[in-house]
Amino acid sequence: MRSIIIASTSTIHGSGYLEYLLEELKVHFKTVNEILFIPYARPGGISHSDYTAIAAKAFKTIGKTVKGIHEFDSAEDAIKQAEGIFVGGGNTFVLVSQLYKNNALTAIKNAVNSGTPYLGTSAGSNICGLTMHTTNDMPIMYPPSFKTIGLVPFNINPHYLDPIAGSTHMGETRETRIKEFHTYNTQPVIGLREGSWIKVSGKTLTLKGTLEARIFEQGKAPYEIASNSNLEFLK
Amino acid sequence: MRSIIIASTSTIHGSGYLEYLLEELKVHFKTVNEILFIPYARPGGISHSDYTAIAAKAFKTIGKTVKGIHEFDSAEDAIKQAEGIFVGGGNTFVLVSQLYKNNALTAIKNAVNSGTPYLGTSAGSNICGLTMHTTNDMPIMYPPSFKTIGLVPFNINPHYLDPIAGSTHMGETRETRIKEFHTYNTQPVIGLREGSWIKVSGKTLTLKGTLEARIFEQGKAPYEIASNSNLEFLK
Repeated sequence: MRSIIIASTSTIHGSGYLEYLLEELKVHFKTVNEILFIPYARPGGISHSDYTAIAAKAFKTIGKTVKGIHEFDSAEDAIKQAEGIFVGGGNTFVLVSQLYKNNALTAIKNAVNSGTPYLGTSAGSNICGLTMHTTNDMPIMYPPSFKTIGLVPFNINPHYLDPIAGSTHMGETRETRIKEFHTYNTQPVIGLREGSWIKVSGKTLTLKGTLEARIFEQGKAPYEIASNSNLEFLK
Repeated sequence: MRSIIIASTSTIHGSGYLEYLLEELKVHFKTVNEILFIPYARPGGISHSDYTAIAAKAFKTIGKTVKGIHEFDSAEDAIKQAEGIFVGGGNTFVLVSQLYKNNALTAIKNAVNSGTPYLGTSAGSNICGLTMHTTNDMPIMYPPSFKTIGLVPFNINPHYLDPIAGSTHMGETRETRIKEFHTYNTQPVIGLREGSWIKVSGKTLTLKGTLEARIFEQGKAPYEIASNSNLEFLK
């Protein structure tokens, strides 16, 4: 049975790395002793080893060990054999470039569809959507494609930000950007605020966390959905 | 002699489209009667015609007519024959995709190097840099390359935004994003705040407007440069 957590962020303001999710992760990775961490997104350009150490420290508090994918000879084999997978945040362009380079996208898809529990945060959540067209990241690397895994039949916009009232900045709001996306693309987008996540259990998709999420569908006005909403209508 | 204006934004808060630049544009387009407008970036998904009408309205106030590139059979020929060129803002991914599709990048480079005066705002400024790796836009379209015209030997970050003091949002600041860019890329980046522009006259590059700009060089701490600074050191 598929078991996936797609989180807006790894860290909420004023709290440690993954801290707000740990109770959920205890259940999610219940049968898992060692988690395969994919640090390819390298937030701030951090090394794969240093990033893996951060993930390992958080998971240690719930009794799990973590091994970085860069420690294996074959990324594909590491994914095939993993008990559980965690893809961390950072830059989605860097992440997707590295996943393509290591033939990891199909391997992750197959593993997750076979029941390997998956956790994605931020960039690691973007890749669960159909494409990475709705990432917020700066395009610092050119990936061979914007197509991602498609574990859910829509796109993710993590770290969703509401327009800032009274802002004098002329750059586009997040909502304007997603509206532009729908000029050229048809799939729905879910704007996940920091602290929200999507829980996939088999065929059931649920919005979790305390906040509402914002839904963008082509040709419709955007709207809010409540926490614990079923997301299966979204395709 | 090359004559280029690379502006952070078309519009500053509380002012009309191009209004803050009109005095400068009178001089910049002094010898020009009709300006070729390239509306490919389509802000908010606006049509080429509607976007051209906005540009035409602004330029009418200084006695210039505007014709959209979509009104010509050949974009390349339109650029070759243009008296002056204006590439408007919107989405850089859409703009660059359309420029490649219409073989317009080389045509613009040749025209500008032959002396055709050029104005770029926002996305139209991004393409003056070496690459579009430092755009702020959402990647809603997949261009065949991130390589842009390289009218200047560095990258542009338009709408540069300082970190917001006291923000609780966990998404990256602009400075963090540009630092990540320098993990994988070597060229300097200029963060142009709204209201700033770069004026290129022959070989002279100058920062214009009243604000400072922020310079990012690989392996150095970012620093500010004053208005009217010469930018020729930046390469």
